[in-house]
Amino acid sequence: MAEKEISQAVISRLPRYFRYLGDLKEKGVERISSQELSDIMKVTASQIRQDFNNFGGFGQQGYGYNVPMLREQIAGILGMDRGYSAVLIGVGHIGRALIDNFCFQEWGFNLVQAFDVDPNLVGKEFSGVHVSSMESLSVFLKEHKVDIVVLAVPREAALPTAEMLIDNGVNAIWNFTNVELVGPDSKVIVENVHFSDSLLALSYFVSDAYDSQK
Amino acid sequence: MAEKEISQAVISRLPRYFRYLGDLKEKGVERISSQELSDIMKVTASQIRQDFNNFGGFGQQGYGYNVPMLREQIAGILGMDRGYSAVLIGVGHIGRALIDNFCFQEWGFNLVQAFDVDPNLVGKEFSGVHVSSMESLSVFLKEHKVDIVVLAVPREAALPTAEMLIDNGVNAIWNFTNVELVGPDSKVIVENVHFSDSLLALSYFVSDAYDSQK
Repeated sequence: MAEKEISQAVISRLPRYFRYLGDLKEKGVERISSQELSDIMKVTASQIRQDFNNFGGFGQQGYGYNVPMLREQIAGILGMDRGYSAVLIGVGHIGRALIDNFCFQEWGFNLVQAFDVDPNLVGKEFSGVHVSSMESLSVFLKEHKVDIVVLAVPREAALPTAEMLIDNGVNAIWNFTNVELVGPDSKVIVENVHFSDSLLALSYFVSDAYDSQK
Repeated sequence: MAEKEISQAVISRLPRYFRYLGDLKEKGVERISSQELSDIMKVTASQIRQDFNNFGGFGQQGYGYNVPMLREQIAGILGMDRGYSAVLIGVGHIGRALIDNFCFQEWGFNLVQAFDVDPNLVGKEFSGVHVSSMESLSVFLKEHKVDIVVLAVPREAALPTAEMLIDNGVNAIWNFTNVELVGPDSKVIVENVHFSDSLLALSYFVSDAYDSQK
């Protein structure tokens, strides 16, 4: 999509831009200057301009950015228009929270099926997503194109499940297990969700607020 | 803790440093060079040196960083040694996942109580955390020092609950509702957990991998 390579740091900021542009679009905002976007997002205007310059921008002197166009372009860079399919493994609390409350569709993903070891869950359907047995998973992966696997199994099942997935050709894992799944040289793409990172940021800001009251 | 002000960008990287240093410490690694840390974390060595220089560092020419000391210093900056207390509101799937599987203690927090509107949940205890009624919350907040509130209520309850919390003196919210709780000028500290940001980063890397196979 993008002609030159975009740095990891820019990539990590794109989802946030996408969210804010979505909020603006919902409010009917058609265009915005980098300064206004800077005020909302608490990122410097020059950072915003630099980031958007990475993929051609859409910014125009004296006009700013066209909100829906910029949003669509970012969606394209992020691959949100490619109709990716996902399966979820582990229908515990976090799995159920994702199935019931996380709108995969909104982010360009189709959650096609869930898998669990628990016979009491197999055959059930939650928010339109069918739960199949773990035994059926490898056949399912052979017969369907699965772009990502959402891994929400308990800690102790994380590594063996990941190994089995990779053996079955899975290339991308959205990892909720808090277990490091692959070594740094693995070709498998793993995106870890670390709740602790945001809690610790909160902890910092709370400490900072307490200190400044002194 | 830190003498000069540390930028938001550095703060946002500290939890990740803390995690990696914890992994190294567990493996018995006593010291590490910025280059080695750079290889593991996929951040440039100069970025690492700059970040750590913000708070005095501990780095020594020809020695590198002392892993346990650096980790402890970062913990201090993040406020992890201050014994903060937390309550959780909304014992649904995500609330239960946090109570049962997220180790608050590990990150310096004490999860003292949970609250829910559901009479079937009130009085129960999960992983040692008692569930009280929402009616009892405002009295609880008056009688106890609560440093942060973990908000895991359904979308539609997010805003009224946040309003009630703020009216009752809550200053910091760890927000799992996917609802923007306060305006940009609010003094209340809100840290939002956006699952979508990490899914979209994954989506980018998947797209990039597909494209490079072409």
